Amino acid sequence: MTMLPVLAEVVELISPPEPQAIDQARRHLDSLTKPIGSLGQLEAIAAQMVAILSRVGAQPLNKAAYIFAADHGVTNEGVSAYPREVTAQMVQNFLRGGAAINVLARLHQVELTVVDVGVDAMFDNHISLHRAKVRHGSRNLLQEPAMSLEELSDALKIGLDIAKRANDREQDLVALGEMGIGNTTAASAITATLTGQQVADVTGRGAGLDDAGRDRKLHIIRRALKRHFGSMPSPPEPVEILRCVGGLEIAAMTGFVLGAARYRRAVICDGFISTSAAAVAYAIAPQIKGYLFAGHCSEEPGHRHLLRYLGVRSILNLGMRLGEGTGAVLAMPIIESALCLYDEMATFASAGVSEAKT
Amino acid sequence: MTMLPVLAEVVELISPPEPQAIDQARRHLDSLTKPIGSLGQLEAIAAQMVAILSRVGAQPLNKAAYIFAADHGVTNEGVSAYPREVTAQMVQNFLRGGAAINVLARLHQVELTVVDVGVDAMFDNHISLHRAKVRHGSRNLLQEPAMSLEELSDALKIGLDIAKRANDREQDLVALGEMGIGNTTAASAITATLTGQQVADVTGRGAGLDDAGRDRKLHIIRRALKRHFGSMPSPPEPVEILRCVGGLEIAAMTGFVLGAARYRRAVICDGFISTSAAAVAYAIAPQIKGYLFAGHCSEEPGHRHLLRYLGVRSILNLGMRLGEGTGAVLAMPIIESALCLYDEMATFASAGVSEAKT
Repeated sequence: MTMLPVLAEVVELISPPEPQAIDQARRHLDSLTKPIGSLGQLEAIAAQMVAILSRVGAQPLNKAAYIFAADHGVTNEGVSAYPREVTAQMVQNFLRGGAAINVLARLHQVELTVVDVGVDAMFDNHISLHRAKVRHGSRNLLQEPAMSLEELSDALKIGLDIAKRANDREQDLVALGEMGIGNTTAASAITATLTGQQVADVTGRGAGLDDAGRDRKLHIIRRALKRHFGSMPSPPEPVEILRCVGGLEIAAMTGFVLGAARYRRAVICDGFISTSAAAVAYAIAPQIKGYLFAGHCSEEPGHRHLLRYLGVRSILNLGMRLGEGTGAVLAMPIIESALCLYDEMATFASAGVSEAKT
Repeated sequence: MTMLPVLAEVVELISPPEPQAIDQARRHLDSLTKPIGSLGQLEAIAAQMVAILSRVGAQPLNKAAYIFAADHGVTNEGVSAYPREVTAQMVQNFLRGGAAINVLARLHQVELTVVDVGVDAMFDNHISLHRAKVRHGSRNLLQEPAMSLEELSDALKIGLDIAKRANDREQDLVALGEMGIGNTTAASAITATLTGQQVADVTGRGAGLDDAGRDRKLHIIRRALKRHFGSMPSPPEPVEILRCVGGLEIAAMTGFVLGAARYRRAVICDGFISTSAAAVAYAIAPQIKGYLFAGHCSEEPGHRHLLRYLGVRSILNLGMRLGEGTGAVLAMPIIESALCLYDEMATFASAGVSEAKT
């Protein structure tokens, strides 16, 4: 695999959570006053978190969410139910605190930061805005690669920088969110290429396309894939998929996932778009997997294919399809609950409760 | 339907949440800055809660959980992986704060009360214990009805009293939990009779039976059903099912659900046992349904049949099978999140965000 210079060093430094730590956590779970395995998926979540954090009693967790925002050149082709300006309008909504993710972040005590990787608008300074615009939107992926190699490197670097910042701030659990009108088109193109699924099976209605709109979107994705990868003798490399049919915010999220794994931070993916970024990171460095949680499974049909590709089970399944990191932040109280059960439950021995008859 | 005197008055007073309030809540949800319907099940949850509470801005919710505990005479037949004493030992564990439900209740700020409806042990006074023992465990349902008519009435009355107490304390959202070694046997017998499913399809391993143990449990349930209902010309009435093959804590939970609906309080069922109680309440008074949430779907195979019978969709699906109200309390932050989104999100108009192209 060709490794971009910006990624070579970080990938070298990623090692998975210690398998012994996971085994030890499982043994502790089996000593608690409950039938063996009766906390279901919470037990796997707790064991994974304990292994990532390398400590118990980590409550309360220091939680953060990052929304990576960018526009997409492919919106010129009419692939979205909403006009392109909505990306910038929603960034303003995030900064004023009125969007769904703001409400959830306040309720669950999560520090929220918006990262402008490529929104087609200028913003004033704001304490919750990280300004790192690479370009006023990616290029139109139907006509040319969505990013030049330099633009891709810049976007990946932004994600790596944000991961370093999360580490510096000792953020234990970080939710990945995004905003970008047109970005389900990019995510579907990535998913079809990475997983080998048919375009029709991984392409949905995005924010609300009708049947004719979805047909147009399918047609555009198929043409784009043929243009970029049609004449290749073998499947394209993950960074090349990202460059040709990705987006600036997706590339930044890929960089973020790699950086978070390098610093041993737990990352919760949100929906289809953020998981497409995590899937590219996984294709580059499979050892990231132990740091990854899937907050929920989205209604977008490609998402379940990505989760299967990653081999990760979603925590929530509430039919959401909003993005912004909403499904990831909503899963945080579940992850916190799992860890708290691990730390605070009595054991059979300490509580004087009889164990199962054998 | 024959109506027990203890139930007649309360059933008369139950009316469903106002359909107009639900419609109005849905219209408000459609005005918020998100694609229509993109919050999935959270939108249905929010609309239902708003209609139950008859007000907006109800944050923070006043949350409570009640664990109804009792022993079961059928444990003499060897239907459980754990000895009968574990019911009392776990009640002590609840009162000392070391069980899973204690951890979750503390984390999510839920007031926890244990209701002793029929544990086969004596307990000292404790601020979190409500003492209302009807009998030291139900009768052995293989040999005779699990309760006399008077015992059934007493147990139902306890649940009604606790619902009144929840109303007096202005508890907005109440989780239903239980503890009772042997109670999956009772719940499976209720479920098979109420839903018409085969015993084998609604009977699982409980707290951890092996194959031989489960076979024995199946055999005992089939014999009990034949004994009590085999010669009946028509399906038994719900209160008769409860009396013959239920349990004291299950009857109390049935009373609680009816009482909560009468006082317009939102109730979250937990797993298989508490949902079997809610299903009996629904069979008695279908208008309770609008006050009911299903916190999660348990691994016990009968649970999904009960949820289908009730027509209620579970909020979480984490493969849990612990009881105690754990799945119900774990769903509380999701319900709170839904309501908070409803109350606090900006509208398209207020945020100056463009709506979808039509």
